[in-house]
Amino acid sequence: MSQEDVVRAAVREFPDFPTPGVLFRDITPVLKDPAVFRTVIDLFEVHVRANYTKVDLIAGLDSRGFLFGPALAQRINVGFIMIRKKGKLPGLTESVSYSLEYGKAELEIQRDAVDPGQKVILIDDLLATGGTMSAACELLTRRGAEILDCLVLIELLSLRGADKLKPHRTHSLLAYD
Amino acid sequence: MSQEDVVRAAVREFPDFPTPGVLFRDITPVLKDPAVFRTVIDLFEVHVRANYTKVDLIAGLDSRGFLFGPALAQRINVGFIMIRKKGKLPGLTESVSYSLEYGKAELEIQRDAVDPGQKVILIDDLLATGGTMSAACELLTRRGAEILDCLVLIELLSLRGADKLKPHRTHSLLAYD
Repeated sequence: MSQEDVVRAAVREFPDFPTPGVLFRDITPVLKDPAVFRTVIDLFEVHVRANYTKVDLIAGLDSRGFLFGPALAQRINVGFIMIRKKGKLPGLTESVSYSLEYGKAELEIQRDAVDPGQKVILIDDLLATGGTMSAACELLTRRGAEILDCLVLIELLSLRGADKLKPHRTHSLLAYD
Repeated sequence: MSQEDVVRAAVREFPDFPTPGVLFRDITPVLKDPAVFRTVIDLFEVHVRANYTKVDLIAGLDSRGFLFGPALAQRINVGFIMIRKKGKLPGLTESVSYSLEYGKAELEIQRDAVDPGQKVILIDDLLATGGTMSAACELLTRRGAEILDCLVLIELLSLRGADKLKPHRTHSLLAYD
């Protein structure tokens, strides 16, 4: 079994969550098995080392990007920064609002989280329509960061999030139709 | 400088955040410096290995417990489980409501996250009044888990959260008056 298949076998499906018609991919078993979680970080690390000779920061999206970002950042020995829901970060911040299926949401970053020209890799658990990740890219771009890649554990191909994120690069460990 | 002092030097203070009169301890520089973050995980690991011969799971609180929990769980080679804000977890869940300064909140766990008798260590970034951590302990206790310890990076001593959590044990890396 490939490393990807080991991870895929640990993802559970729950129909009609959080709303009817949605098939929810549950990553809790990935976190609960230390060998599977280690495999996830291994796979992200291999991708990063194979594609980028210099990375300055890993940026994780609130809140499930926090599960993977610090562990990956430690592996490649770089810092981790948080992209949070609005109102959680102290000091001078920059925020961006974006559309959800119903209504709007705002993401926020501390202004001193990243310096102009720093090379940043974003990470989250899931790429669906790409709305949240796109807003995170917008924030980092405004702060002058160079976005190398957007990493996710799971990509839902039919929602075409990777297209929305272009020209930014995306990489998923598991793709579902 | 002790390892604890290295970590303490990386914590920033922001007065009057999120509300007037509150001094916010900002851990973002701890995450941004990979050596400091590694020191945090080192210190948690030393504490756990010195005090517990068998740990089954690390349980992290949504969302800043997610920053430290998976990295610590990897170090001691155990699984990580999430204690989340209500409505985020699929499948059969158990929830508990608790009081905040203004209003109420609910925490939730998947029923199959922990088996009766499993030895669990909780982790979060901050122990203030202990309301959230106490609710997390209640959830795990209801599921039959044995709570070994509640770990936090920062403890605000004047708010007496450790007293509220008794008879559960707590351990903080940095204590502030």
